[in-house]
Amino acid sequence: MKNSHEDPIKSLFEPKNIAIVGASNVKGKIGYTILNNIVSGGYRGNIYPVNPKGGTIMGYSVYQNIADINETIDLVTVAVPAKFVLDTVENCAKKKAKHIQIITSGFSEIGNIEEEKKIVAIAKSNGMRILGPNIFGLYSAAASMNATFSASKIKSGHVAILTQSGALGVAMIGKTAVDNIGLSAIVSTGNKCDIDENDLLRYLVPQKETRVILMYIEGVKNGSKLIDTLKWATEKKPVIVIKSGRSKRGAMAAASHTGSLAGSDEIFDAIMKQCGVIRAKCLNEAFNWCEFFAFCPTPKGRNTVIVTNGGGVGVLATDTAEEFDIDLYDDQTVLKQAFEDSVPAFGSTKNPIDITGGANSDHYKMALNAPVNCKHIDATIALYCETSTFDSENLVPMIKDTFENHKKAGKPISYAIVGGEDVEKAMIILKKENVPVYNEVNDAVSSLGVSFQYQRYLKEKSDLVEEAEIDIERINSIIDLALKDQRPFLLSNESADIMSAAGITMPKSKIAKNINQAIQYANEIGYPVVMKVVSRDILHKSDAGGVALDLINQNEVLDAYEAIIQNSMDYNPQATIDGIEVSEMVEKGVELIVGARMDRAFGPIVMCGMGGIYVEVIKDVVFRGLPINSHEAMKMLKEIRSFPLLLGVRGEKKKDIDGVIDTIMRVGSIIKKCNKITDIEINPVVVYEQNKGLRALDVRILIKNPQEAT
Amino acid sequence: MKNSHEDPIKSLFEPKNIAIVGASNVKGKIGYTILNNIVSGGYRGNIYPVNPKGGTIMGYSVYQNIADINETIDLVTVAVPAKFVLDTVENCAKKKAKHIQIITSGFSEIGNIEEEKKIVAIAKSNGMRILGPNIFGLYSAAASMNATFSASKIKSGHVAILTQSGALGVAMIGKTAVDNIGLSAIVSTGNKCDIDENDLLRYLVPQKETRVILMYIEGVKNGSKLIDTLKWATEKKPVIVIKSGRSKRGAMAAASHTGSLAGSDEIFDAIMKQCGVIRAKCLNEAFNWCEFFAFCPTPKGRNTVIVTNGGGVGVLATDTAEEFDIDLYDDQTVLKQAFEDSVPAFGSTKNPIDITGGANSDHYKMALNAPVNCKHIDATIALYCETSTFDSENLVPMIKDTFENHKKAGKPISYAIVGGEDVEKAMIILKKENVPVYNEVNDAVSSLGVSFQYQRYLKEKSDLVEEAEIDIERINSIIDLALKDQRPFLLSNESADIMSAAGITMPKSKIAKNINQAIQYANEIGYPVVMKVVSRDILHKSDAGGVALDLINQNEVLDAYEAIIQNSMDYNPQATIDGIEVSEMVEKGVELIVGARMDRAFGPIVMCGMGGIYVEVIKDVVFRGLPINSHEAMKMLKEIRSFPLLLGVRGEKKKDIDGVIDTIMRVGSIIKKCNKITDIEINPVVVYEQNKGLRALDVRILIKNPQEAT
Repeated sequence: MKNSHEDPIKSLFEPKNIAIVGASNVKGKIGYTILNNIVSGGYRGNIYPVNPKGGTIMGYSVYQNIADINETIDLVTVAVPAKFVLDTVENCAKKKAKHIQIITSGFSEIGNIEEEKKIVAIAKSNGMRILGPNIFGLYSAAASMNATFSASKIKSGHVAILTQSGALGVAMIGKTAVDNIGLSAIVSTGNKCDIDENDLLRYLVPQKETRVILMYIEGVKNGSKLIDTLKWATEKKPVIVIKSGRSKRGAMAAASHTGSLAGSDEIFDAIMKQCGVIRAKCLNEAFNWCEFFAFCPTPKGRNTVIVTNGGGVGVLATDTAEEFDIDLYDDQTVLKQAFEDSVPAFGSTKNPIDITGGANSDHYKMALNAPVNCKHIDATIALYCETSTFDSENLVPMIKDTFENHKKAGKPISYAIVGGEDVEKAMIILKKENVPVYNEVNDAVSSLGVSFQYQRYLKEKSDLVEEAEIDIERINSIIDLALKDQRPFLLSNESADIMSAAGITMPKSKIAKNINQAIQYANEIGYPVVMKVVSRDILHKSDAGGVALDLINQNEVLDAYEAIIQNSMDYNPQATIDGIEVSEMVEKGVELIVGARMDRAFGPIVMCGMGGIYVEVIKDVVFRGLPINSHEAMKMLKEIRSFPLLLGVRGEKKKDIDGVIDTIMRVGSIIKKCNKITDIEINPVVVYEQNKGLRALDVRILIKNPQEAT
Repeated sequence: MKNSHEDPIKSLFEPKNIAIVGASNVKGKIGYTILNNIVSGGYRGNIYPVNPKGGTIMGYSVYQNIADINETIDLVTVAVPAKFVLDTVENCAKKKAKHIQIITSGFSEIGNIEEEKKIVAIAKSNGMRILGPNIFGLYSAAASMNATFSASKIKSGHVAILTQSGALGVAMIGKTAVDNIGLSAIVSTGNKCDIDENDLLRYLVPQKETRVILMYIEGVKNGSKLIDTLKWATEKKPVIVIKSGRSKRGAMAAASHTGSLAGSDEIFDAIMKQCGVIRAKCLNEAFNWCEFFAFCPTPKGRNTVIVTNGGGVGVLATDTAEEFDIDLYDDQTVLKQAFEDSVPAFGSTKNPIDITGGANSDHYKMALNAPVNCKHIDATIALYCETSTFDSENLVPMIKDTFENHKKAGKPISYAIVGGEDVEKAMIILKKENVPVYNEVNDAVSSLGVSFQYQRYLKEKSDLVEEAEIDIERINSIIDLALKDQRPFLLSNESADIMSAAGITMPKSKIAKNINQAIQYANEIGYPVVMKVVSRDILHKSDAGGVALDLINQNEVLDAYEAIIQNSMDYNPQATIDGIEVSEMVEKGVELIVGARMDRAFGPIVMCGMGGIYVEVIKDVVFRGLPINSHEAMKMLKEIRSFPLLLGVRGEKKKDIDGVIDTIMRVGSIIKKCNKITDIEINPVVVYEQNKGLRALDVRILIKNPQEAT
């Protein structure tokens, strides 16, 4: 524990002593259960029950007041009614306790925010850290400490669980006990009045007992910090998340399209992916994956073989393999050589390798040891359908043997064994011996699948720091002008100016005051050009004959200028004509949407997708939390379903993908650097062929309420 | 068994006697296992072991030849080596046996097709039906007959399983035994040389023991017949399908876009939905759903409540409920009245109803009996997270009580109980007593979800027979012309003629030979019109000045006619001008794709989706097997993700949805009635506002190879 200066909350998980305020000798009371769990769990430090009644509990002298304890306390567990908690915290402060976990509920979760704030204030000013309130406690294998009120015993192991829900946490403890899943720690974050996921991850991730982290999340606050922590965490250990509230859409204000498209869950999902976090749908799935990560090596390469005694399950496994992007190896020469001895006539050495329903444990051993010795194969999926020919008494030894051999070779193997009682018995034995086996093909394949997903993330991630150069001073001065006018929105020319300051190209456009200027501007812009009358007295420019399209040379500009003036005067003789707008004619291209905004949960995010009217209908958009680099922006583009349009379909040339990436980076830079902007949306941005760039056709920018922004 | 004339294969499932050819007294031999299973399974009919060696097996006299048996045989089970099977079948024929199940493998599945054909021929000419070969046998609860070589005992119950994979079937028997799932029948179809899924379903669906049917399918042949059978089946009983080979795309020739889009799995999936069949991803999911269907009533209405003691699982359930389209009831007045007595302070009578972590079995009883007595609530999801306050000895009685009360009221209730050993023990007891409970929120909610899905299907299905009227004689005569020319494709005017014969509108177009005709045609077509020069000598019409767009009246047509002639002559003085094409000017609208083709597995199918270039990129298309009615065509449209474009987005008016439905029906009619056409694709078909119809812009029709079509 001399390293405690390295992690400020290390002594929360590895305390040299624990005080239990509210300890009780009445069975069924939380103060009894926690003390009993600490004692029976084999905690080796000093235990100090505290209760004004005094006496002894379970053989321990009870202290009437925490002040009476003759030692500095690393961890105080508080399980007294809510009204006594504040006093207790004050007493802890006097005693200079390091950590307090407040089991008691009845604080901010029911609106009692003030009391919680007082507790935090006392803790802060006395250098104490608080876990909770409203939690079931904390288990830490590193200290053999079960300071929870769970009814089930906890098996020590390698999965660390962080849960936002106490009830689900207790149920998870029960489930891990039944499923034989060992935990390095389980902790509920409760109201997170002080210690939050970031603090806990900073301790758990480097901790040697922990091999994989499972988080149950209901909602995210301060997501920007969480992004940093998760990126750091997944570099070292796999992190699996279950997030509820997938269906709670519209939780965020839909200030712009970006908002209305983005159910917060889509953003959550995108950001988890960006951070290398694996998302599970449900507990069983998460536990399956945790077991695999805890006991199987991560694959080194991508070549996978399926070995099966039944064609049907082989096909089912192939389906799931494709779903999880697992590469089924198919070099027939290698496979034949590796498996020809173990595959009988009417079997198949084609992947899935079919060793047929006649296979016994020896055949399986031979077939499953083949990948161990084959340098071309990186991972194995082993499927077994119960048959009457298999010597079922050898099922467990066969699996243990082939599992160990794979492990020694640093290769993962995932087993699905499907059948009756013999199979179920084998599963129980194998799980106890830390061999991950599943009774469903899907589970075995998906477990290996997420292992590959994690491996790919680590391989593909890029830590390159990139920042698009934008003229932030100019942008700020444009916004300040709007704020000065008490406007919460920008005028279209202001938006255009911001695009220009950010280096994003809009169609070139100038307002000519006379015929010579018109010709000059047209020459500058380049042909073809479009000309339009500019007059506050002429709203419907086309009706007035005030528009001329596709002007290809100086002569046509000349003619058009005269015609537009004439038509406009005919249309409305009283009209004041401010000038003639000369613009670049925008050609057709691929229409995208690029946007950015301040997300309530995750801070600055960017989005990109299919533009035009399809953005609302098809919702083919992807999100990322900032910062990103161009590598990540490219990954965004590849996730858009209509990405092939950028590669060029039907013989079209490749589009200016670099230009799109550059635009995403620039839009991201604006939202990140200018804290007065809340939303930017360019829809459509028209993308042309490679090196021909793009044009932002329509830009909408929202700024902070002038009252708030000052 | 006097009803055997009603179903020709009734005596396969309910035979009055069984002969086992290849019966053996050597343990481990298939002929031993099957006989032993029949005997120990409690089969009540006569049992005749047959083996040339004679003697007795398990106390039964062994017949040396099937001919020696003094009775007509309902079911002969054949478990002799492949080379002896043909002789055995011949002997059966002499004996006038009714059914033969051939366990033996080594026939068409390994390429030995001839032998299998001979067997079928003998059976056919002697009025015998064959199950197999290459199967594990047949279990039928109605006859207490376990004529399989499975190692596990089978529990009788209400789930009928049909499996195409023998190995998986045996494993499923084991799994149902472990999971306490009762079967009414399990049968593997093997090589399907005679009896197939259709025959088996015709018997199993009306059978009273069977409440739900589970099918494992690897591939479909004669899918047109399967569609009929499944539609008939799901009217009576729920059918759940696991289909492997999801990833085996490109199995069918991609003769047209329709083909290249349609991985066969997409079509399979669409057709299953169309037939009201529920598709499961994996065995556990399928078994969960089967249990629910077997023991819970189908919901009468859609109002569902979630009752929980933990907020976290409540939210997880809400997520899955949305995914499965379960309506969470939210009339707060009703909910408050129904639940106020059972919800404590800090709980919630908002759905999910939170009875808090302090709830014991009495609170649960009160809360879970509330929906029973509330006429506004149709279904209940009950969630329990293990807590230390709950009296766990009452978990089983509480669930049984509330389950029975729901059942009496005809309302389904689905339980998820999450926790440790107590929970697992409760699950085992409850499953034995036929109460479906799950240890995962997802499983409980999805089970109720598919029950709703089935209920919705039954409610929304329409048996209306509709057939679009098309001029099939004219269509055939157009195709005959192409066939006469040995052309496997149609010319564009021929395709247009077929569209016209089918009543599908293409842009109006006529070729004028002189200026008067041009004016006349333009008047007939209606303005605006487009005019184009028709000359085999002028390929690039625009370059030649041979095109005039947007002509809005007679004068403009007159001017354009002269200009086009003049420009064309200037462009190429030698050109022969065949006329001037006068066409309707096609305005912009919503672009769809509508197609139809002969699918190898399912016969005639139709498709519809987002058209233009997006069809390749976004693949927003849906399929149906024929026949369909306009009700089903409307359901197709609603499944297209871009359907909102037809409803009108951004203030646009609703589009001509009736016209699209009509087009789908007509295209379907063509493929169904004209067996010389293999593929039709209209892309795009442009859809206008309601009552303004649509225009088929580009039509491609493929016909059968002239050699084959004659």
